[in-house]
Amino acid sequence: MSRSIKAIVYRAHGKPAEVLRLEEQELPSLGENEALVRLRAAPINPADLNAIEGKYPVRPTLPATPGFEGAGVVEEVGPAVRNLKAGTQVILPHDLGTWREAAVVAADKLVAVPNDIAPEQAAMLKINPTTAWRMLHDFVRLKPGDWVIQNAANSAAGRAVIQIARELGYRTVNVVRRKELVEELRVAGGDVVLLDDDELRDAVAAATERAPIRLALNAVGGESALRLAKIVAPEATIVTYGAMSLKPLTIPNGLLIFKNLRFTGFWVNKWYEQTATAERDETFARLFDLAQRGLLQTKIERSYSLGEFPEATARAAEGKRDGKVLFRGA
Amino acid sequence: MSRSIKAIVYRAHGKPAEVLRLEEQELPSLGENEALVRLRAAPINPADLNAIEGKYPVRPTLPATPGFEGAGVVEEVGPAVRNLKAGTQVILPHDLGTWREAAVVAADKLVAVPNDIAPEQAAMLKINPTTAWRMLHDFVRLKPGDWVIQNAANSAAGRAVIQIARELGYRTVNVVRRKELVEELRVAGGDVVLLDDDELRDAVAAATERAPIRLALNAVGGESALRLAKIVAPEATIVTYGAMSLKPLTIPNGLLIFKNLRFTGFWVNKWYEQTATAERDETFARLFDLAQRGLLQTKIERSYSLGEFPEATARAAEGKRDGKVLFRGA
Repeated sequence: MSRSIKAIVYRAHGKPAEVLRLEEQELPSLGENEALVRLRAAPINPADLNAIEGKYPVRPTLPATPGFEGAGVVEEVGPAVRNLKAGTQVILPHDLGTWREAAVVAADKLVAVPNDIAPEQAAMLKINPTTAWRMLHDFVRLKPGDWVIQNAANSAAGRAVIQIARELGYRTVNVVRRKELVEELRVAGGDVVLLDDDELRDAVAAATERAPIRLALNAVGGESALRLAKIVAPEATIVTYGAMSLKPLTIPNGLLIFKNLRFTGFWVNKWYEQTATAERDETFARLFDLAQRGLLQTKIERSYSLGEFPEATARAAEGKRDGKVLFRGA
Repeated sequence: MSRSIKAIVYRAHGKPAEVLRLEEQELPSLGENEALVRLRAAPINPADLNAIEGKYPVRPTLPATPGFEGAGVVEEVGPAVRNLKAGTQVILPHDLGTWREAAVVAADKLVAVPNDIAPEQAAMLKINPTTAWRMLHDFVRLKPGDWVIQNAANSAAGRAVIQIARELGYRTVNVVRRKELVEELRVAGGDVVLLDDDELRDAVAAATERAPIRLALNAVGGESALRLAKIVAPEATIVTYGAMSLKPLTIPNGLLIFKNLRFTGFWVNKWYEQTATAERDETFARLFDLAQRGLLQTKIERSYSLGEFPEATARAAEGKRDGKVLFRGA
């Protein structure tokens, strides 16, 4: 393999169409504990676009290559590498910049993935399904039959929540904005799917027979988050992991003092930083098992070559899509 | 003692001046496990006034007698009562209605208080010092030298936080609205006392040498609560136990997702409901010890007889006071 590769690079923050370039780079030579990975698939996530625009809390040193997620295949390993070999499918680390043809990476930062998981799906396990898995484990001790409520239920993370909750025996109330999603998410495994409007509270009470809901997952903020807070049981936890409405959470004091709700957040990057490799791999093992059984399949709208980045990033930035936009390997 | 007593009663919710009456009541005869307690002191708390107006989350069955706090002396006990005898000073339960001359109470709902604690002070340990004690124990595992920040630091609960934190070896940043309180709260034991304005963040950083603050106590809401949230360390907990500004908490999503703050609340009534007698008494034992050593002395503005309730409740409702307003026993 040639040591010269193509990578998307930006030298200043700004609109993707204006600041991104496709550049030739020389790969560094392979270190003892490193692996050379050829990229197979890398999605364009909202966080990637925010990072390029400088609107993300972590700013890379510029010039930088975007891309928090990606999967590839090991082509070559350094002499000290034991856990990987040529041909192993791997998930790339989130701080590498995945929008590139290939990379030299420390082997212990790579996660091996069974080869029967498609690279496009392997590439998308690291953010949304992991977020869903952790949110269903780290905040409230749930038992089979318990209810969880979430808004933005049609997002990639929302759909992962539906499938993981079902796997764990929890029941989901899924809140969406568009009517046409109701049937679709029921088919996808949502126990209850309801519209995010003023009737929501009564509709939830009827659908759950007023069962206490002790965990709410919020990726919208604003009014929608407040609705969830009013619906959940006293002492419930509301976990915020996204802010699609771009509106802050306004919490009446009584919900804190008298209803004793707990509001907190989840950010998967922080989880990776704070989590030991063994625990990280344990989560991945469970997600791989689900993926091998045909679950956690994120819908894909279209994949593009790296050279098509202007169209790809523009499409990814649009609201009305029917799945993720990805870069595919050469 | 006569079985006929006076008690303040209301038959409908409304302004205290309009709905309260002083009435004669017959005490019920003493049951096996009951004690007859003559009231010595009962404060007028904001929660009492809210309850009378029907603005409190728990509504009593009407007619009702107001008063969540009070202390008295046992005059007589039923034949099966072992833990109390005539002459024992006791704290009354919060669901009795303390604005009365005397009451017959189940003995196990009374907490015996050392007689060298003045009845006025004993009467005021149940809400504010208990709130302060629990908030410093139940949310973040602090160690000596750690910092805690609070607004409304001059309130009865705020002053209890200062004294209890000092006792436990924690350092306090105390935020107040009025300049003249700065020196006063320093004398009362506050390590750092600062004004609640736009300079607060820099002032805290300077005073604490940028030490991480992992616990914030909020009794104000609105802007002031948001300031605390911006000052505390990532993953800190903000406990809301009051809402003096009457403004909701508006939380930028980034503080939840990326800074991973935890917002929750504390309501002492709920704590009493959920806590076993032994654990409750353990907290009281520590508070009594502090009170006997001259700490946790709540400032008193004036005490009134029950018959003076129109003046007393009007005074208690005023903002600018220099201490609590109490009813005293006959």
